[in-house]
Amino acid sequence: MLNQPVAFSILNDELESRRIDVSAVIEMLKKQHIETPSWGYANSGTRFKAFAWPGAATTTRQKLDDAAMVHKMVGIAPTVAIHIPWDQPEDGDYEAMCQYAEAQGVRIGAVNPNIFQDDEYRLGSFGNPDAAIQQRALDHVWECCEIMPKVKSDVLSLWFADGTNYAGQDSLVGRKRRFEKNLKAVYEHLPTGSRMLIEYKFFEPAFYSTDIPDWGTSYAWSLKLGPQAQVLVDLGHHAQGVNIEQIVAFLMDEGKLGGFHFNNRKYADDDLIVGSVNPYELFLIYNELTGAALGSAEPAHSSAPNIAFMIDQCHNVEGKIAPMIYSVLNCQEAYAKSLIVPRQQLAEVQAEGNILEAHRLLTQAYRTDVEALLQQVRQEMGIPLEPIVAYEASGYEEKIRSERGLAATSGGFQ
Amino acid sequence: MLNQPVAFSILNDELESRRIDVSAVIEMLKKQHIETPSWGYANSGTRFKAFAWPGAATTTRQKLDDAAMVHKMVGIAPTVAIHIPWDQPEDGDYEAMCQYAEAQGVRIGAVNPNIFQDDEYRLGSFGNPDAAIQQRALDHVWECCEIMPKVKSDVLSLWFADGTNYAGQDSLVGRKRRFEKNLKAVYEHLPTGSRMLIEYKFFEPAFYSTDIPDWGTSYAWSLKLGPQAQVLVDLGHHAQGVNIEQIVAFLMDEGKLGGFHFNNRKYADDDLIVGSVNPYELFLIYNELTGAALGSAEPAHSSAPNIAFMIDQCHNVEGKIAPMIYSVLNCQEAYAKSLIVPRQQLAEVQAEGNILEAHRLLTQAYRTDVEALLQQVRQEMGIPLEPIVAYEASGYEEKIRSERGLAATSGGFQ
Amino acid sequence: MLNQPVAFSILNDELESRRIDVSAVIEMLKKQHIETPSWGYANSGTRFKAFAWPGAATTTRQKLDDAAMVHKMVGIAPTVAIHIPWDQPEDGDYEAMCQYAEAQGVRIGAVNPNIFQDDEYRLGSFGNPDAAIQQRALDHVWECCEIMPKVKSDVLSLWFADGTNYAGQDSLVGRKRRFEKNLKAVYEHLPTGSRMLIEYKFFEPAFYSTDIPDWGTSYAWSLKLGPQAQVLVDLGHHAQGVNIEQIVAFLMDEGKLGGFHFNNRKYADDDLIVGSVNPYELFLIYNELTGAALGSAEPAHSSAPNIAFMIDQCHNVEGKIAPMIYSVLNCQEAYAKSLIVPRQQLAEVQAEGNILEAHRLLTQAYRTDVEALLQQVRQEMGIPLEPIVAYEASGYEEKIRSERGLAATSGGFQ
Amino acid sequence: MLNQPVAFSILNDELESRRIDVSAVIEMLKKQHIETPSWGYANSGTRFKAFAWPGAATTTRQKLDDAAMVHKMVGIAPTVAIHIPWDQPEDGDYEAMCQYAEAQGVRIGAVNPNIFQDDEYRLGSFGNPDAAIQQRALDHVWECCEIMPKVKSDVLSLWFADGTNYAGQDSLVGRKRRFEKNLKAVYEHLPTGSRMLIEYKFFEPAFYSTDIPDWGTSYAWSLKLGPQAQVLVDLGHHAQGVNIEQIVAFLMDEGKLGGFHFNNRKYADDDLIVGSVNPYELFLIYNELTGAALGSAEPAHSSAPNIAFMIDQCHNVEGKIAPMIYSVLNCQEAYAKSLIVPRQQLAEVQAEGNILEAHRLLTQAYRTDVEALLQQVRQEMGIPLEPIVAYEASGYEEKIRSERGLAATSGGFQ
Repeated sequence: MLNQPVAFSILNDELESRRIDVSAVIEMLKKQHIETPSWGYANSGTRFKAFAWPGAATTTRQKLDDAAMVHKMVGIAPTVAIHIPWDQPEDGDYEAMCQYAEAQGVRIGAVNPNIFQDDEYRLGSFGNPDAAIQQRALDHVWECCEIMPKVKSDVLSLWFADGTNYAGQDSLVGRKRRFEKNLKAVYEHLPTGSRMLIEYKFFEPAFYSTDIPDWGTSYAWSLKLGPQAQVLVDLGHHAQGVNIEQIVAFLMDEGKLGGFHFNNRKYADDDLIVGSVNPYELFLIYNELTGAALGSAEPAHSSAPNIAFMIDQCHNVEGKIAPMIYSVLNCQEAYAKSLIVPRQQLAEVQAEGNILEAHRLLTQAYRTDVEALLQQVRQEMGIPLEPIVAYEASGYEEKIRSERGLAATSGGFQ
Repeated sequence: MLNQPVAFSILNDELESRRIDVSAVIEMLKKQHIETPSWGYANSGTRFKAFAWPGAATTTRQKLDDAAMVHKMVGIAPTVAIHIPWDQPEDGDYEAMCQYAEAQGVRIGAVNPNIFQDDEYRLGSFGNPDAAIQQRALDHVWECCEIMPKVKSDVLSLWFADGTNYAGQDSLVGRKRRFEKNLKAVYEHLPTGSRMLIEYKFFEPAFYSTDIPDWGTSYAWSLKLGPQAQVLVDLGHHAQGVNIEQIVAFLMDEGKLGGFHFNNRKYADDDLIVGSVNPYELFLIYNELTGAALGSAEPAHSSAPNIAFMIDQCHNVEGKIAPMIYSVLNCQEAYAKSLIVPRQQLAEVQAEGNILEAHRLLTQAYRTDVEALLQQVRQEMGIPLEPIVAYEASGYEEKIRSERGLAATSGGFQ
Repeated sequence: MLNQPVAFSILNDELESRRIDVSAVIEMLKKQHIETPSWGYANSGTRFKAFAWPGAATTTRQKLDDAAMVHKMVGIAPTVAIHIPWDQPEDGDYEAMCQYAEAQGVRIGAVNPNIFQDDEYRLGSFGNPDAAIQQRALDHVWECCEIMPKVKSDVLSLWFADGTNYAGQDSLVGRKRRFEKNLKAVYEHLPTGSRMLIEYKFFEPAFYSTDIPDWGTSYAWSLKLGPQAQVLVDLGHHAQGVNIEQIVAFLMDEGKLGGFHFNNRKYADDDLIVGSVNPYELFLIYNELTGAALGSAEPAHSSAPNIAFMIDQCHNVEGKIAPMIYSVLNCQEAYAKSLIVPRQQLAEVQAEGNILEAHRLLTQAYRTDVEALLQQVRQEMGIPLEPIVAYEASGYEEKIRSERGLAATSGGFQ
Repeated sequence: MLNQPVAFSILNDELESRRIDVSAVIEMLKKQHIETPSWGYANSGTRFKAFAWPGAATTTRQKLDDAAMVHKMVGIAPTVAIHIPWDQPEDGDYEAMCQYAEAQGVRIGAVNPNIFQDDEYRLGSFGNPDAAIQQRALDHVWECCEIMPKVKSDVLSLWFADGTNYAGQDSLVGRKRRFEKNLKAVYEHLPTGSRMLIEYKFFEPAFYSTDIPDWGTSYAWSLKLGPQAQVLVDLGHHAQGVNIEQIVAFLMDEGKLGGFHFNNRKYADDDLIVGSVNPYELFLIYNELTGAALGSAEPAHSSAPNIAFMIDQCHNVEGKIAPMIYSVLNCQEAYAKSLIVPRQQLAEVQAEGNILEAHRLLTQAYRTDVEALLQQVRQEMGIPLEPIVAYEASGYEEKIRSERGLAATSGGFQ
């Protein structure tokens, strides 16, 4: 175990020699906010098999309990995204759900409609050629708009499984127009002060065309809709090689970045632990976020605090709560490293065209081991210094295994 | 509808002017053999949803009925691959299953063990760190070896879901050695005169490493094992951009191409109708196959007739039997086009380095509309000239819908 | 050789039975217009080697001669894109260049500035951190704006090599803003009635970030600029798997598709003969174009006739003029096939959600051999029935080889 | 600047608490050996432009001078790969070249034939349909075999640009057989005690098929040839998503990994600074190498010391010598991190199937900042603690700029 006081002292000196304001960094780290998804605590799987995990949550109360436990361990995960109808209360009492969450120490975050799991959606929801099925999907999203104030949520998070599997199956333009019409109908129902986030995805479950395949589509539509519509970036929803941090930079500069679904992938939408496949890419994304937030350019600066940092991952084989803690910690580490980038100095060498020195300054921040800094933050927040060790020592895993047993698979994922 | 006699006469003249022996082509087309999979007649889906199709098969008898119907429509699909335990008879009477198939007009083809759907296989089967689970998987494959003679099958088709999701999760070398040991144990149990086909897959359901990720691995192991081990190529199991026809050419030249899982994909392992995404690629693959089969070089020439042409697709939204017929027909069309490539002439211009003329000769064959030729083949075989039209007119779809109803999802896919 | 009258008669009957108005199709095919690039007639290569081709053009007159020869062979390639300064007249007399072209039977098409080949552009042009170099690039583009009326061109075609090779090398947001500023400065200098087309490219020659990496960026900026700015789609400038026809459909529906750079690729920006790698994809792209052009929806319908269909390929090993003819012919074939898609019938089965029948109707058009139809078009236009055969018989290749010899490599490519 | 003694003391304690034998790690780091390429000191570029760098080497003496300067700065780059004919002495006196190198403090490493830059190789070298051109290529490789003893090299490093650009252009099987024949002819001419390394590449400069497209092909042929033939892995020569460390693990386990071409890429064969795009992947590759070298399994253990670690990168915009130093340092850092993986403990948790703990143990090593350890190594070796700072302070860059000026572009790259 790290000798934290000594290690922090050394790191503090080192960072100050780089002219980093360490106490300001610590304050920003304390305010970080990562949202975990209710469905991440339930069983999930691949199309081949969903392995049941002992103790996995099946009820929304259990999911909220688990999310609250994660928040207790990390201190920066105070909200939980919900999925309707997976998290629909039997009695429809959303206020009670909201109160239950708050009693556990967390709040409800984004509301996620599900318009892909019913048989009617075989050919899509908003893009379906059948107007009645479009309306059915719209009704459900409207219902979610009504749920939002009940759970004190101001974010409607929209992902669509819509697309086609075969060339010619449907009109690409026709589907585009149906989407534009239906998204407009959603926009008009948004609660005051709330936002709708439009998620894009390269492919899956549609295998020829996806109705919102890329950021350009989400952006174009959010522009048509108005200021309450923004883009949601899921890290696993791009073609191979796409420079995600550049998309982030573009959207922030336009005030159109609404939120993230954090996860990681090597191949397709693998939905693995955040930062487990490419931690450097995660750092580069945070680097853009931090640069915009700390800068003065508008609308980037003012819209930065509203970005919803949501985890969306699918734990197939590695448990549920522990990997969620890892994901939050990896976000924290990446954020911390982005906060120690010497931005003024970097801007100067960039302006000079000094490629190698600019690259070195950026990667020096990445290379720095910030564990002692993070432990300092945790100490000041009254959080366990080593969240994973603390979780394992807590007995929580044994408790839920024994109380909940090996439940049937439930839930879904995006 | 095509005026077949006139159209065929015109095409026949055109092909003869290209010095193609049309009657020889027709004879080869009559001998084409495509195997359909029992699981392709059952419901399947993506990780998000499996849409139930009215009339989808749930029992093996129903699957065999459907396969027999496909064969009646196309005349070149006389065998059916089975999956154990999905197709395991309740009474264990495989001879009866075999007889039932034959009574419907089809035979059992490849036997496919399933070592990925049980809870024990969370960390893999042959690659599992736990020796007891490796043995469990081995026992199941040995059981399949014993089933083979009972169903008159001489092909054991092996696909493994094995791999890891996180760097460090397991030893890559350790898994390699476990696989080599267990594959050897399978090889030693193979029935005389039979073959084991080793399938590779780029990724999914494992998202960091897959134990048999590419043809090189399958090939290396089939070489170590001996002549009864060969490689199985699934068209959806490659990285983007991989030149599959070159892999086919290499393996045939070494006598190590054992069979195919035909399907098509635009993104990952999409398992769509064969030839629906890239019909030109399918033609180029058949071009290599036909070149090797018609050539005199060994071992390619002699091993060509043993290649198992198996369809492995997953119909998520488009029905079951009709798309299977499409797949068979697309294979037939690609094969026909490969048979009208003027090989002698092509070899000459290739030797001269005449790039454009060589490319033109090959693509001229692809561009040729061979429908009239295929209808001639069907006529001579006593098969419906237009299999899709005939299937739709047959009333079979209505019959199974009414008899079987909307069954629960069953089965799996690779 | 095809018995054209009989073959056309058969095809005509077949198409009429599918309710296609064949004479209308023929009229549309006569009006097709493909632009060839002056630089495509000069030598080019990969970073490893540029193989000199005997007879390759080195002067702009030679390039115009070659383009005129292509047009004589195909009848549908009446314009030539030029690249400044590669095609800069020594005496600056652009009117004379224009007249020379017209005397050969072709016209000047798009004007392409070159802001990537000078040493100053090592860190970019419009995105360069140095304001003086930005201005230098801007001056050159303004110069091109002034050239446009002199050569009777109304299209300014903009491609930028700008980007970075290392994370941190430059500010992603900074580069975005520089581009927006400089593109605006170009827009304000556009000649009346002309358009500027903004090309995007996934990567190369920049290997970490490209300043205009995707259609979304081009689209966003063309929207900010105004109606004279549109997007240029180069078929080789996407990540693997991207559905290009969907981008085409989206842009047309917004009136923002300005033009194409046609070529083909299997891997990166391979710049091969159009349709040589994936002819089906080329058909699907034309299918969207034709659907929009024949439809009544605006702005798609009215902007369709203004789309600039430009070839941009790089012949490394296969000659220059013959592969250019192949590319034009492949575009003609794809366009013809898109014209025989039964759109009304297709729309009906799409509305019904009949996946397989819709896919069949579309692919039936693709499968149809349209050679007899194209020969009918050529006959009516007074063009050689078989352009490749006619070119080879013309003696042109021998003539330029003997006149021009083996010239040094010149020119570039995009 | 790091307070090295204190920082090392802290790190030493931390590593010892993880039961790492730090002094053994230091000894291994002192023996690391990275080879730099002579052509990396000359100008190079993309197909669009080669930007000349002031002071870039043009003669082999200059390249050896630069390589020696790199070695002085890093202490672990004692050898230089040469390219024939780029490094051919005018008087053919290779012994003198060898002595010159040694006088500068470096030795000649791998010999790289060039069989792609002559006009004759338009259709390939060993795969060319023309037997005379095959022989020409073979003669050149044989010449390189004769050069090897003269420069005291025991590694022949073979990369081929061979392939085709269009389907049908040549026979895929024919090219395979020509390669097998010609590689055999090379093998028979290998100097005693030397090895030939067969490099594969996914694509470029060939765009339809590449004659050695993947590790499977290199491996299959090295197996046919015999123990002196091994595989060379270039990090930029794979399809997107390929798990390179798994290929490394496989080849080592078979004793068939001969060497590396280190560089990094985000898209295609971008040839950037090693570790600049994905430092985690570089660590994972070293992790497999170190695991095999430290293990006792054969042939992996015994073949490990013979692996040739060669850099092959192409500096387009960032200078020459400084980026080469970065690459060496990044290899050093990755190797150091791989040496502090707690292998015994990792093997235990892997055996237990403890996914998260195994992943944590591995990534903890990656996360550790090893700069203080590396400085300790450098101090003990008498090398500058901060090689980049030392290089910049050395005046070498100014010296070569003034002496050599802005030379014309020369050289090539792989």
